[in-house]
Amino acid sequence: MWVYLFEEGNTRLRSLLGGKGADLAEMTRIGLPVPPGITITTEACKKYNTMKQRFPDGLEKEVLEKIKHIEKKMGKKFGDPSDPLLVSVRSGAPVSMPGMMDTILNLGLNDITVKGLAKATNDERVAYDCYRRLIEMFGNVVLDIKRDKFERILEEYKHKLDAKLDLDLDAEALKEIAEEYKKLIKIEIGKDFPQEPYQQLFMAIRAVFDSWNNPRAIVYRKVNKISNDLGTAVNIQAMVFGNRGLDSGTGVAFTRNPATGEKELYGEYLMNAQGEDVVAGIRTPKSIDQLKAEAPHIYKELQRTCDLLERHYKDIQDIEFTIENDVFYMLQTRSGKRTAQAAVKIAVDMAKEGLISKEEALMRIEPKQIERLLHRRIDPNAEIELIAKGLPASPGAASGIVIFDVDEADKRGSAGEKVILVRMETTPEDIHGMVAAQGILTSRGGMTSHAAVVARGMGKPCVSGAGEVKIDSEAEKFMVGDITIEKGDIITIDGSRGYIIKGEVPTIEPELSPEIRELLGWTDEIRTLGVRTNADTPEGAERARMFGAEGIGLCRTERMFNAQDRLPIVQEMIMANTEEDRKIALNKLLPMQRGDFNEIFKIMDGLPVTIRLLDLPLHEFLPRLEDLLVETTELRLSGKDEEAFLKKTNVLKKVQTLNEHNPMLGHRGCRLGIRYPEIYEMQTRAIFEAATELAKENISVKLEIMLPLVGKASEISFLRQRIEDVAKRVMEEAGLKLEYMIGTMIEVPRAALTADEMARYAEFFSFGTNDLTQTVFGYSRDDAEAKFLYNYLNENILEANPFETLDREGVGKIMKICVDFGRKTRHDIEIGICGEHGGDPASVEFCHEIGLDYVSCSPFRVPIARFAAAQAKIKMDRSSANDSKVRFEQIDQ
Amino acid sequence: MWVYLFEEGNTRLRSLLGGKGADLAEMTRIGLPVPPGITITTEACKKYNTMKQRFPDGLEKEVLEKIKHIEKKMGKKFGDPSDPLLVSVRSGAPVSMPGMMDTILNLGLNDITVKGLAKATNDERVAYDCYRRLIEMFGNVVLDIKRDKFERILEEYKHKLDAKLDLDLDAEALKEIAEEYKKLIKIEIGKDFPQEPYQQLFMAIRAVFDSWNNPRAIVYRKVNKISNDLGTAVNIQAMVFGNRGLDSGTGVAFTRNPATGEKELYGEYLMNAQGEDVVAGIRTPKSIDQLKAEAPHIYKELQRTCDLLERHYKDIQDIEFTIENDVFYMLQTRSGKRTAQAAVKIAVDMAKEGLISKEEALMRIEPKQIERLLHRRIDPNAEIELIAKGLPASPGAASGIVIFDVDEADKRGSAGEKVILVRMETTPEDIHGMVAAQGILTSRGGMTSHAAVVARGMGKPCVSGAGEVKIDSEAEKFMVGDITIEKGDIITIDGSRGYIIKGEVPTIEPELSPEIRELLGWTDEIRTLGVRTNADTPEGAERARMFGAEGIGLCRTERMFNAQDRLPIVQEMIMANTEEDRKIALNKLLPMQRGDFNEIFKIMDGLPVTIRLLDLPLHEFLPRLEDLLVETTELRLSGKDEEAFLKKTNVLKKVQTLNEHNPMLGHRGCRLGIRYPEIYEMQTRAIFEAATELAKENISVKLEIMLPLVGKASEISFLRQRIEDVAKRVMEEAGLKLEYMIGTMIEVPRAALTADEMARYAEFFSFGTNDLTQTVFGYSRDDAEAKFLYNYLNENILEANPFETLDREGVGKIMKICVDFGRKTRHDIEIGICGEHGGDPASVEFCHEIGLDYVSCSPFRVPIARFAAAQAKIKMDRSSANDSKVRFEQIDQ
Repeated sequence: MWVYLFEEGNTRLRSLLGGKGADLAEMTRIGLPVPPGITITTEACKKYNTMKQRFPDGLEKEVLEKIKHIEKKMGKKFGDPSDPLLVSVRSGAPVSMPGMMDTILNLGLNDITVKGLAKATNDERVAYDCYRRLIEMFGNVVLDIKRDKFERILEEYKHKLDAKLDLDLDAEALKEIAEEYKKLIKIEIGKDFPQEPYQQLFMAIRAVFDSWNNPRAIVYRKVNKISNDLGTAVNIQAMVFGNRGLDSGTGVAFTRNPATGEKELYGEYLMNAQGEDVVAGIRTPKSIDQLKAEAPHIYKELQRTCDLLERHYKDIQDIEFTIENDVFYMLQTRSGKRTAQAAVKIAVDMAKEGLISKEEALMRIEPKQIERLLHRRIDPNAEIELIAKGLPASPGAASGIVIFDVDEADKRGSAGEKVILVRMETTPEDIHGMVAAQGILTSRGGMTSHAAVVARGMGKPCVSGAGEVKIDSEAEKFMVGDITIEKGDIITIDGSRGYIIKGEVPTIEPELSPEIRELLGWTDEIRTLGVRTNADTPEGAERARMFGAEGIGLCRTERMFNAQDRLPIVQEMIMANTEEDRKIALNKLLPMQRGDFNEIFKIMDGLPVTIRLLDLPLHEFLPRLEDLLVETTELRLSGKDEEAFLKKTNVLKKVQTLNEHNPMLGHRGCRLGIRYPEIYEMQTRAIFEAATELAKENISVKLEIMLPLVGKASEISFLRQRIEDVAKRVMEEAGLKLEYMIGTMIEVPRAALTADEMARYAEFFSFGTNDLTQTVFGYSRDDAEAKFLYNYLNENILEANPFETLDREGVGKIMKICVDFGRKTRHDIEIGICGEHGGDPASVEFCHEIGLDYVSCSPFRVPIARFAAAQAKIKMDRSSANDSKVRFEQIDQ
Repeated sequence: MWVYLFEEGNTRLRSLLGGKGADLAEMTRIGLPVPPGITITTEACKKYNTMKQRFPDGLEKEVLEKIKHIEKKMGKKFGDPSDPLLVSVRSGAPVSMPGMMDTILNLGLNDITVKGLAKATNDERVAYDCYRRLIEMFGNVVLDIKRDKFERILEEYKHKLDAKLDLDLDAEALKEIAEEYKKLIKIEIGKDFPQEPYQQLFMAIRAVFDSWNNPRAIVYRKVNKISNDLGTAVNIQAMVFGNRGLDSGTGVAFTRNPATGEKELYGEYLMNAQGEDVVAGIRTPKSIDQLKAEAPHIYKELQRTCDLLERHYKDIQDIEFTIENDVFYMLQTRSGKRTAQAAVKIAVDMAKEGLISKEEALMRIEPKQIERLLHRRIDPNAEIELIAKGLPASPGAASGIVIFDVDEADKRGSAGEKVILVRMETTPEDIHGMVAAQGILTSRGGMTSHAAVVARGMGKPCVSGAGEVKIDSEAEKFMVGDITIEKGDIITIDGSRGYIIKGEVPTIEPELSPEIRELLGWTDEIRTLGVRTNADTPEGAERARMFGAEGIGLCRTERMFNAQDRLPIVQEMIMANTEEDRKIALNKLLPMQRGDFNEIFKIMDGLPVTIRLLDLPLHEFLPRLEDLLVETTELRLSGKDEEAFLKKTNVLKKVQTLNEHNPMLGHRGCRLGIRYPEIYEMQTRAIFEAATELAKENISVKLEIMLPLVGKASEISFLRQRIEDVAKRVMEEAGLKLEYMIGTMIEVPRAALTADEMARYAEFFSFGTNDLTQTVFGYSRDDAEAKFLYNYLNENILEANPFETLDREGVGKIMKICVDFGRKTRHDIEIGICGEHGGDPASVEFCHEIGLDYVSCSPFRVPIARFAAAQAKIKMDRSSANDSKVRFEQIDQ
């Protein structure tokens, strides 16, 4: 069978009937009033191509037979001179494919039937407009005559008759234009426009088949890795007209409000009009509510249809309909685009209505949508003056004065002004300006341009590739159309949507709606992966707990060292030349650290808190070498202040001593802890003094002490001994005993590769995937993002920034090795992740797949992580066990 | 059976008879004239210990019975008043164990038998000397009386009689001393020295058993992880005397010359003397040659014995012998210590004599010995004035003026003076001084001290931990005993042997003796692992080929860029702001690069040459940021030369732009090649122009083009396309076709983890284990060796410097993964290693084990690598297949 009636197909036959054909069949199947039609299968197309552009045997006969079905349903005949059936012909491949032939309307019109149509519709103008459109479309698509040749004829007539719009042309003019079109065809191809309707039809079918192999389609398939063997289907459908009088009409509607998610019909319609009239904006369409009064039975039909559609598709639908002589027709339905807010509300409502399960509801939301709701964004009630749109390169919203010069942006931004840096594009030389800016706007470059990559890395809003924005850097202004923005003017950018807005616009803090709270509650029922937070301040801990964090997965201690009031003491400790002097400084830090932990422990009462001992290299706490070199040279040459010079030189010498070629791979983490055990001993004491103090007030935390940058099991065993000694001493002093664990970060490949050894001394692992990505790739993140990552993304060397989304192939593989080896030694070892990937949905999914116990991420990302964790669980439960096995087969072999 | 006659044992019974007992039995067994004796087994000792220090049943009876055998053989009786049999009692555990009781001689003497001995030997003095020694040893070892109490009595007598040496004491004096000794014992333990010979004997046996559990022995076993359950054996052997007249004597000999390896008896002897006389230096011993004339039948016996020993032990033997009344006795034989040179000659000679196989010969040499022969070393013919000895911390020899101050060493060393830096110990602050010095001497610290680790890393000679050297840094001098060396005095250090020598000593270039050439020839027959070299100069290539390299495994191209005459052009290329300007500079470099390759290709005619495209980050070719900061500040403040200031500022800006936080993980390697494809295109052109040119002269190389720092297969495919394009173009221009391969370094973990993907585009892999070690450990080599590696080695966190010896557990595991994955995709992919580990014997062995095709190392290390490769093959063939499987089991699971 080469041809299917719409009644014979369904949505599952996409590969045979193409996407469009399957959808039309599905709507027909569930009883919607779809104009009748037939679909020629993709198999026919394939056969046609293998047979060197010959129709397969029986195809034509089948078409002729099945068209009778359409005629019968419509009560009209194809080619009938008095009231002809007209059809549309559309291509429809199994996957959406721009570049192929799209549509020919009004097939079946010719010099004779056009008159019948005029009479039947009682509108000669409409009839001839249909006819000249058919000739133009047919001439262009089937006969391959350039469209502008037709347009030129049309323009000439409009000029001659002083007509502004097509609509100003009357029936007579259109009749003449049709004649001119036919002449054009005769001249161009030496043949007449085919008058015989079936000839028109088979020529159109052939054109659809041929369009499968046109160059644009071939390139598109190559780029998108679509097989050349799929073929396309051809849909032939009866035309219906909404402009056949006052009992006809057309409209579009959403089954729910796509902006808010409210359950209400939402849309517009026009009576006695065609689809394009609604969009063209010449007549003002009416709100769908008004249809209730104007045509209550049609409204009822629409309501019924919408209910049916939602029950069937279990999602908000975006539909097109036409009314022809009081008969309601569905032309299209598709899943409705909606705002993030609406998406959440619709999913939650539908679940509560029993339309879908909670799991389904969760799967309906993209993690990105949750993310959008969690970024500072433009107040939706604010009036905005949109200047232009670019690419949504890095989410969030920011306002500031426009600055074009990088150095100026640096200077003014650093001085506290809010600056939006505007550039054609950015380069590594611009980093300092980007750092100082609130947001970045570029007129060139895509989602993976330097600006986009770096801004995402910095967590700053960025709009890139705003082509309409014409920058005049000499004059320090930019223009969009006739709007001019000068240096110093204030603009707002919305990096989540790509908006460039004039002036300052109020932005709002992210907040959680009741629906999102409900949805997140469901994630907790479903997910098996824990979600903790990275927090090292009481504020962060508090916010994260509010957002549903189940503990702290990473409490960095170096930020505590960096505080204004402590830095001098930390520097004193570093400048100390003996262990004794170091201990004196450390003793001053002890009560401060104890205070830090005390506050955080209180907030996290009852939950685990993973504290990472000092990780930073010591020189991070001293002035920068570059600055010191300039300052000492200045002091030396001025010769005025000998004492200051000597002091500065002393610091310079220490910094030179501590300075490293590659600090990321240098003397930090546990290496420092082993070299100067007194530092970790102080920290351990602070932790246990705080914890024992609180234990007396019945506040408890699950202490997890984490060692950074471990690469060898002996590092853990060395430090473990010392930590246990101090802990024991403090607990004895306090007269009580606390449970605690000692574990390690996994952030260098060696730790992962020797996880079996590691697990002998570590009670938990936590993947530091930032550093692990750096070491597995051999990328310094700072250098890569500033220097070559954007180039790699542009050249498709990398599919994604591995610092945003976990690289499964490499980093993921070694994580899997680590989990397997670690659990071999200690089957119940707790394994988590505390790198930034812990808040990235795709990475969270991977963490679930390899069986981690929890992810830990920044407080704002906790909801996203909860959400992604639930989705991961659902996905994995759904996918066959086989599938996930295959993915790791290569590792296990 | 608790007791074995020497005739009843053999060398395989070590665990039962102890090492010494088994060796004595073995000599007896093969017919050597060993003084007769018996061995009490370790089982008896164990039983003694489990039975709370009681002799096991039957032991005493067995001793009494078997001693009869000794009496019969010697024709004397134990305790016989007229001519008593005397015996020695020695401990002998299955493994050598200092800390246990060693020896009691002359057992069987008492107030009566001593007179018999005096008569029988006709030497009263000797008899009483033997007696007083027995009392002293027995008192000390068995009765636990401090030795210095006996010594004090002896000293008093010498003082009283004005005797300088023991020998100056006559029989009468010795008799009196023996009496005093006996009185001392009576006072100390309240009992008399036991006169009954059997009582002496059993007390001595008990003392040996007890010594197994003395504190020193227990500690030694704990430290060396020796089981407490082994127990010790006891050897009781007849005493023979070389001082019984002119037909008696004693001597030591080597079966071959231990210095040169020549096949000739080598040693010394003295007639009418005891062992200690030969060593004491009072009488000058005669060369063993003279024995031929003095006692031809004894010499013949000696010769026969040596032949027998070599045939039996198949190695050079170091023996002790005694002649008693014209009877030749063997007292000891052991494998002879020899110089590196001798070791090689002996092994080769023995193989040629058919004593051992070639494989055996190869296994006899330690790779370190080969290494010693390949370092610059002190001329063996030079007269040297040894000041002191320290630890051989880093091999090689160097002379220079002594400098104590690090900054001064830096200054004078940098200015061209040859400096030996002398410090108590070094710290990271001293690096600049170490860099500028020829060699380093420290008075403290071990083989893993900072100085040792850093010096080995730099390849500089170092002697560490020379405790005798007393440094006075204030006065800038050091003293050893009464020798004083002042700042500026010249010394020579030999880091291979730990020597500190006065003045400048001639050193010699390493050279290959005929024997070593022969030995290396054998390695080529045996090994399956290829050996290539790392060379980027014609000189290096030539030397390596001479040393037997089978190709170049790594030809770095950045060194070629760094040459004096090219740096300005390279800098011009870097400072260029457009691709066009860059290409202009690159075009100037093209003929130079072509010339480089041309020369190297000529030398390597017929062999593979692996050329690595540019790897270094660009800022390495520009002035240092630190210097520029100081210089621009100076120019700015002086305000004199505006033009120079601007120019310098321009360079500074570029350097700041290019500068990276972690250059090791930054914008270098293929990342640079992808960012600026024109650089690799120029290099490819140079390579193929040189190769096609030479091909016309019938000189051919097997070209292998290698990409650095690859972490993703897409990097290879991107560059591969461009390289192939250029290669094709050049070959077309030349009108000929060359075979070549394109491959990749494996130096970041991701490359290894995704080797299956890599192998789709790479025709060969080469492990860059320097960088791979850095990334797997997360160590920056420069920072680690200067900052914390020595600490890690000292604390036993690391067993070895992973940059010297490949870390099997981590780096090795990922290499194995890489080999397995790579070969899965491309089963015949060529895999080598070009990191420095390629010249380290233990690492070479690992490379053989995991099935690499070749190792590549610096020219001087080529012989060591060939040697290590052969040893690896032999070892692996010998070890059971099971064994090697177990080692990698964890990876394969």
